[in-house]
Amino acid sequence: MGEKLRLLLLESPLELVPRELWSHPQVVKTARRYDLEPGDLILDKSLHYNAMAVLPKKWKRGRPDIVHVTLLNILDSPLAMDGKLEVYIHVFDGRVFRVEPHTRIPKHFERFKGLMAQLLKVGRVPPEGEPLIYEVAGSLSEFLSGSRLILMWERGVQVSPDRVVEDAMSSGDYVGIGMFPRGDFKRSVLRKASRSYSIMGGRPLKAWTVASRLLCAAERMLGYL
Amino acid sequence: MGEKLRLLLLESPLELVPRELWSHPQVVKTARRYDLEPGDLILDKSLHYNAMAVLPKKWKRGRPDIVHVTLLNILDSPLAMDGKLEVYIHVFDGRVFRVEPHTRIPKHFERFKGLMAQLLKVGRVPPEGEPLIYEVAGSLSEFLSGSRLILMWERGVQVSPDRVVEDAMSSGDYVGIGMFPRGDFKRSVLRKASRSYSIMGGRPLKAWTVASRLLCAAERMLGYL
Repeated sequence: MGEKLRLLLLESPLELVPRELWSHPQVVKTARRYDLEPGDLILDKSLHYNAMAVLPKKWKRGRPDIVHVTLLNILDSPLAMDGKLEVYIHVFDGRVFRVEPHTRIPKHFERFKGLMAQLLKVGRVPPEGEPLIYEVAGSLSEFLSGSRLILMWERGVQVSPDRVVEDAMSSGDYVGIGMFPRGDFKRSVLRKASRSYSIMGGRPLKAWTVASRLLCAAERMLGYL
Repeated sequence: MGEKLRLLLLESPLELVPRELWSHPQVVKTARRYDLEPGDLILDKSLHYNAMAVLPKKWKRGRPDIVHVTLLNILDSPLAMDGKLEVYIHVFDGRVFRVEPHTRIPKHFERFKGLMAQLLKVGRVPPEGEPLIYEVAGSLSEFLSGSRLILMWERGVQVSPDRVVEDAMSSGDYVGIGMFPRGDFKRSVLRKASRSYSIMGGRPLKAWTVASRLLCAAERMLGYL
């Protein structure tokens, strides 16, 4: 039995405001509100809904809140504190970042967005010294090369969280959780999965709920609960 | 075995900006930013840190984010959807509100704060029609009259989440989770507990993690997992 649970937050709706939206009134307004340049803002559907109308695949974009709540959940676990958890974020532009499990994610949403903007621009945070979150691959293919992916997918085989965690920890494979609010995984992501599971009878669940239930199962398996 | 888990979010750091801070530059600035009156703002430590310096018990105040993440976690459970969960919020001024389990909590933090401001001012949301979150008691004593309280407390008896949920669901008693970021429960709250438990060996845990682990145990007990 491996000692680590490897979570991969897939297709996270996290990106900087794209250049073509920089002059949109909603973007100009939020840039002014936070005293930032438009290119330093994280795209946020709640603030940039109208501006996003022109973007392709807009239903999968601009939801940094999902990543925020999920990370807050994942990192407050004894698994994280005891080095038994690995966390990776795959973002809209394809890059993959590693999150050191002792990272203290800002609790406040605005500060979290500020941190994510820095991450996406510089490729790591903090910019100097020991990195807490940093780029490990330019694409999902590069990230996974030679490793296998277990996908949490509503249409996957219905199993218990215990079964997912047993499989993941004995194989050492990554467990991918979709971070987008609607729609399905890209076909290119689906093709990368070696197997897929769903929990709670295939109910639609929020990303952070799937992550919590897997952590709960892992804590149970490792004797924390 | 009762069919419901009754969660009570205790001493939630949720309040409107107190009148004595309305003219503080930090408060004036955020009021202007969101185009609101100072009295319509939720106190938020991340924005009002300096302004809060004069407030008593400031370490237990101004953290709406904790309530937000906890509610997002609690309400995305099949227990909530199937009517097997009751959720109550006890806030800084002592009032207790009931949250209907099918309430769709705004995912975006700023919108959540707007909703909470309305709740604290009007006593219910939405202001008209069927209420989703509404005042059920003016104080914790009034709320608990005749009912018993199980407290999740770092210094409580160390048990598994399963044991807490078994006890709570068989007795029908409320399970109280402290929502403050630091410090301990008020003595007046501690005195109201008929028994207290801690999970994960008394590790300090975030409120939303305690809530998630209890929900996970309840889902397991009721056969959802």
